[in-house]
Amino acid sequence: MINAALIGYGYWGPNLARNIARSSSYDLGWIVDLDDKNLQLAKESYPWIQVSNDASQVLAQEDVDLVIIATPVSTHYSLASAALKANKHVFVEKPLTDNYGQAQALHVEATARNLVLMVDHTFIFTGAVKKIEELLEEKALGDVYYYDSTRVNLGLLQHDVSVIWDLAVHDFAILDYLFRRKPFSISAVGFAHFPNTPVNTAFISAKYEDNLIAHINVNWLAPVKLRQTLIGGSEKMVFYNDLEPSEKVKIFDHGISLSHNQDLQENDLTKLKIGYRKGDIFLPQLSSREALEVEFEYLAKCIESSCSPINDAGMGARVVQLVCAAEESMRLNGAPVNI
Amino acid sequence: MINAALIGYGYWGPNLARNIARSSSYDLGWIVDLDDKNLQLAKESYPWIQVSNDASQVLAQEDVDLVIIATPVSTHYSLASAALKANKHVFVEKPLTDNYGQAQALHVEATARNLVLMVDHTFIFTGAVKKIEELLEEKALGDVYYYDSTRVNLGLLQHDVSVIWDLAVHDFAILDYLFRRKPFSISAVGFAHFPNTPVNTAFISAKYEDNLIAHINVNWLAPVKLRQTLIGGSEKMVFYNDLEPSEKVKIFDHGISLSHNQDLQENDLTKLKIGYRKGDIFLPQLSSREALEVEFEYLAKCIESSCSPINDAGMGARVVQLVCAAEESMRLNGAPVNI
Amino acid sequence: MINAALIGYGYWGPNLARNIARSSSYDLGWIVDLDDKNLQLAKESYPWIQVSNDASQVLAQEDVDLVIIATPVSTHYSLASAALKANKHVFVEKPLTDNYGQAQALHVEATARNLVLMVDHTFIFTGAVKKIEELLEEKALGDVYYYDSTRVNLGLLQHDVSVIWDLAVHDFAILDYLFRRKPFSISAVGFAHFPNTPVNTAFISAKYEDNLIAHINVNWLAPVKLRQTLIGGSEKMVFYNDLEPSEKVKIFDHGISLSHNQDLQENDLTKLKIGYRKGDIFLPQLSSREALEVEFEYLAKCIESSCSPINDAGMGARVVQLVCAAEESMRLNGAPVNI
Amino acid sequence: MINAALIGYGYWGPNLARNIARSSSYDLGWIVDLDDKNLQLAKESYPWIQVSNDASQVLAQEDVDLVIIATPVSTHYSLASAALKANKHVFVEKPLTDNYGQAQALHVEATARNLVLMVDHTFIFTGAVKKIEELLEEKALGDVYYYDSTRVNLGLLQHDVSVIWDLAVHDFAILDYLFRRKPFSISAVGFAHFPNTPVNTAFISAKYEDNLIAHINVNWLAPVKLRQTLIGGSEKMVFYNDLEPSEKVKIFDHGISLSHNQDLQENDLTKLKIGYRKGDIFLPQLSSREALEVEFEYLAKCIESSCSPINDAGMGARVVQLVCAAEESMRLNGAPVNI
Repeated sequence: MINAALIGYGYWGPNLARNIARSSSYDLGWIVDLDDKNLQLAKESYPWIQVSNDASQVLAQEDVDLVIIATPVSTHYSLASAALKANKHVFVEKPLTDNYGQAQALHVEATARNLVLMVDHTFIFTGAVKKIEELLEEKALGDVYYYDSTRVNLGLLQHDVSVIWDLAVHDFAILDYLFRRKPFSISAVGFAHFPNTPVNTAFISAKYEDNLIAHINVNWLAPVKLRQTLIGGSEKMVFYNDLEPSEKVKIFDHGISLSHNQDLQENDLTKLKIGYRKGDIFLPQLSSREALEVEFEYLAKCIESSCSPINDAGMGARVVQLVCAAEESMRLNGAPVNI
Repeated sequence: MINAALIGYGYWGPNLARNIARSSSYDLGWIVDLDDKNLQLAKESYPWIQVSNDASQVLAQEDVDLVIIATPVSTHYSLASAALKANKHVFVEKPLTDNYGQAQALHVEATARNLVLMVDHTFIFTGAVKKIEELLEEKALGDVYYYDSTRVNLGLLQHDVSVIWDLAVHDFAILDYLFRRKPFSISAVGFAHFPNTPVNTAFISAKYEDNLIAHINVNWLAPVKLRQTLIGGSEKMVFYNDLEPSEKVKIFDHGISLSHNQDLQENDLTKLKIGYRKGDIFLPQLSSREALEVEFEYLAKCIESSCSPINDAGMGARVVQLVCAAEESMRLNGAPVNI
Repeated sequence: MINAALIGYGYWGPNLARNIARSSSYDLGWIVDLDDKNLQLAKESYPWIQVSNDASQVLAQEDVDLVIIATPVSTHYSLASAALKANKHVFVEKPLTDNYGQAQALHVEATARNLVLMVDHTFIFTGAVKKIEELLEEKALGDVYYYDSTRVNLGLLQHDVSVIWDLAVHDFAILDYLFRRKPFSISAVGFAHFPNTPVNTAFISAKYEDNLIAHINVNWLAPVKLRQTLIGGSEKMVFYNDLEPSEKVKIFDHGISLSHNQDLQENDLTKLKIGYRKGDIFLPQLSSREALEVEFEYLAKCIESSCSPINDAGMGARVVQLVCAAEESMRLNGAPVNI
Repeated sequence: MINAALIGYGYWGPNLARNIARSSSYDLGWIVDLDDKNLQLAKESYPWIQVSNDASQVLAQEDVDLVIIATPVSTHYSLASAALKANKHVFVEKPLTDNYGQAQALHVEATARNLVLMVDHTFIFTGAVKKIEELLEEKALGDVYYYDSTRVNLGLLQHDVSVIWDLAVHDFAILDYLFRRKPFSISAVGFAHFPNTPVNTAFISAKYEDNLIAHINVNWLAPVKLRQTLIGGSEKMVFYNDLEPSEKVKIFDHGISLSHNQDLQENDLTKLKIGYRKGDIFLPQLSSREALEVEFEYLAKCIESSCSPINDAGMGARVVQLVCAAEESMRLNGAPVNI
């Protein structure tokens, strides 16, 4: 049984509490929040719990094994850092930090202390993304040409962070999980249509080795909600629509064929004939388990076996690095930023 | 009755011939093609027609009023130029030329001679785009924040021109028609995944004055065909899906509201509270007439009244300029190119 | 404040308890269930509540105003009857009873005692059905020609009642609410594909005065879930798709026109020319409040003002009558049963 | 080369002429129509053709092998009968006749003379229906429980025949092709909403041996066009949507499982536990050839090899029989009519 303390019971904290509380792997002992109203709500749902306004009080508890951080991103570094120094495992909301250097520092600290630091990139625990990862693992798509994601809706504009930190961060995490490498260059264009507000519309392109290009289209001003990702490969292609209730992942047995043009001279190897091929479409059944539940189960295993999770602070730091590069390119009106 | 000659009876020429032949405004007298097989096909469909391998023979005919050019783009300039010099009106396939200078020269020539030079940007004659133009004309969308178009499919890769010349050219023409101005800066990223082939995947961002941003996503490697355009405004928003048979244009009475935050001090005018509003959705009935038919009717009117069409060589040249700027930015990995 | 007691805390009871508990109009004092495990669950969620295995104990409480019945349908009559006789208002799950005579008896009893007896036909409190009712109220559809509903899914086959009691009952309630009258004849065909199981697939047609026909298609063996209702009128038509998250009700400005054929002799009034008309499509914004919450708010108002609700035992009885008629016609292989 | 004569060049005739003319198996020599304007149109498209107002003139031609009949249904019997008696093969539009006895007589006549009489039930030559037939042939669906088709649109109301003759006839032909047997009973309910017009809305249920039920929902008063067919089996289920451009047939690896309930006594074989199973979804690539082209290719093969086609007068007669039975049941308000 892992003794857990939750810091932050605002927007997302209650979801985390609910998942931790119903899991047999965890014992949720503490909830911390600066706001007494939130603590009161916590008490009503979990009458047995201890509450506090002071995170340091909880970090000082010997029997707390795991600290779950669901506070504003600007506080992530100091809280996570303190928790690691108190020898606690840490689960922290995405993004890990708002700063690449601090993200790296957390990764170093967690690694040095052999503690688990997991970043809540929930999407990689969905049945859909897991299935796509399996397809890539077994090279079913052939050479992958592009990843193209549209993630738009009419959203509450945030006052402190841009739409990239809010939405594109999901794609950066998915890209890291699916392709296990970083792009070498990022170009982004964005717009803040309203005075004194962050960028609400952004288009990001990332170039990878081996001819892979990623594109991310995010905005908070769309009349319809779209969550569409196209992944094109030489052997198969994927259309992932996260809004479909039961047909999220369509695998197209379509592809690109390159063959030597018989009309050309034999030695002219550079002249290839390019064609395309259309075949069947396959929609695999996906796990319908709640992603957060899967993630917490995985966290428990990582803690118990002292293994580093896939979504460790290393991934968290890489995601932060890419978000920062996209922000930098936006300031340069799309000029590429090397990673 | 306008006496018309068609030059080029390959892929698109037969469509033009069919529309010209069935219109009561035109008399199709000549079809020119270098390939005798194509001329034979033309003869079978239009037994009364004169055919030729030699465009100059046709340009020399006194009684030809209009020359329709449906040949490869590299020949557009010399054919259109010769036709204008022979005092013929000209209808030319998109893109006008592959070169901004030549496009401008054609515009100057046509204007000086008071001849009609129409470029076949067919999309602006569809019921859908026409309806959106009306909405913008009457300011129904309020301030327009963005135009975001996805135009992808599994296409025959072309060997000579990139996907921008093939697909993005439609969006550049629609943008010119809808907003009547040019962007000040273009940033584009693209990829040619196969050796010795043009770019098949491209993402283009264009910035306009007054906070408008346009984004165009085109590729030939998509498993599904998508033709989706989002247009976001402060008062209303549009979702235009050209693949819907009878529900192409959805107008959302959704919007963005900016109000002074009452909690703030009165003089702090920079602090605005931003919210969004959701309302009804309206799908106007659209004209279902074939766009090409509408376009040729308009061409006849322009010729008869000696008026310059909206899709004149000026528009054609602007479109070419933007395509060339996007190609230039792609070579610079996304660095912005000023217009 | 209305003092409420809930009888039945199995499948649906917890939903009712949650809505009652969070409403400021009700005070939930008692939960009754035969199964102690269910009562224990109830206690965990509502620690302040009194629980019992014995409904009569609760009916004997002076201060209980309202009895909410969420038990198997076979027990509805005796429980509701006893509650009315104890001078309690009653809210009972649909269907009211499995028997028309008993349903009528409850209606008589409630009316005589001036007590509210509401049947939980939740659908009529959804934003979508409410909007359609308003359209009919203001005659926006013109003459209504048909109501055609498809309500299928891959469902847990039930062992005791047919798919008509499970699914078609929703349509009978909606029909009663929208059209405020009963059909004069019902014809139904159904199939029980598995031995010793109830009918799982049924097709029901109901004829009404004034040329209205209703059709209900229900089954538990469908690979996809469909909730589609077409309503055709002379002036407008509706397509109601309950699975659409935000575009449930589409109103088509399409219609049927009847005009005298000018080619015919003037006196031949019987010869009408029939045409159809296509116009715009309109999707009204719908209330997104939870239907059950709206229903309980309405229940409180009915109790406080001693008014009979629209979904009173009279409606409940009419629905039961139609379900029974459909079952009877199924036994007759589709032969019509008069109402 | 088969010498063909076409009788009837009105609504559908030109489609047939176009397909016959471009096939290398046929030589189209004659077109017959009562209306000289139609013959003139025919001459314009096929200048080499002989035209006539008189079918008997054409039937008297020695060198005509095949007579194609695309005239109003009331003339089918006499024309087809005369053609057979003149020893011509016959291709006739659906429905074969408006009368079961005459349809049977044609079948007898064609069989006796060893002539091909093919009825144009085009749907069975589509890639979609062909694929479903293959699935049934190889028993991939297991036991088939139902066929449920919705075929509605806003259509030109016809003055002489009901919507059953116009639309349901397609489903009767598909059912005959897929299941190779007739139902034993039909029940139908329909409505003619306008005076002196045929039924425009109909709901038909057909019961087959082996627990199969078919249901057909047709109307001309729907705001949206729907072409949806569900086929449910014990092993797999199909959703066939003919309006999808490239995803017409979805095969669901869903099913119904029957198992003995372990809680019950061993000998109680009648008590089965019924569950359902959800699996992957598969969309096979379908042939995209035009169905009419496939059908005419098949017709040529049948004529050359003197084989009876699957869509012979026997199938044509069975379809007519079912349509007539549905009409009869409609007159009886849904009372079942035995076949």
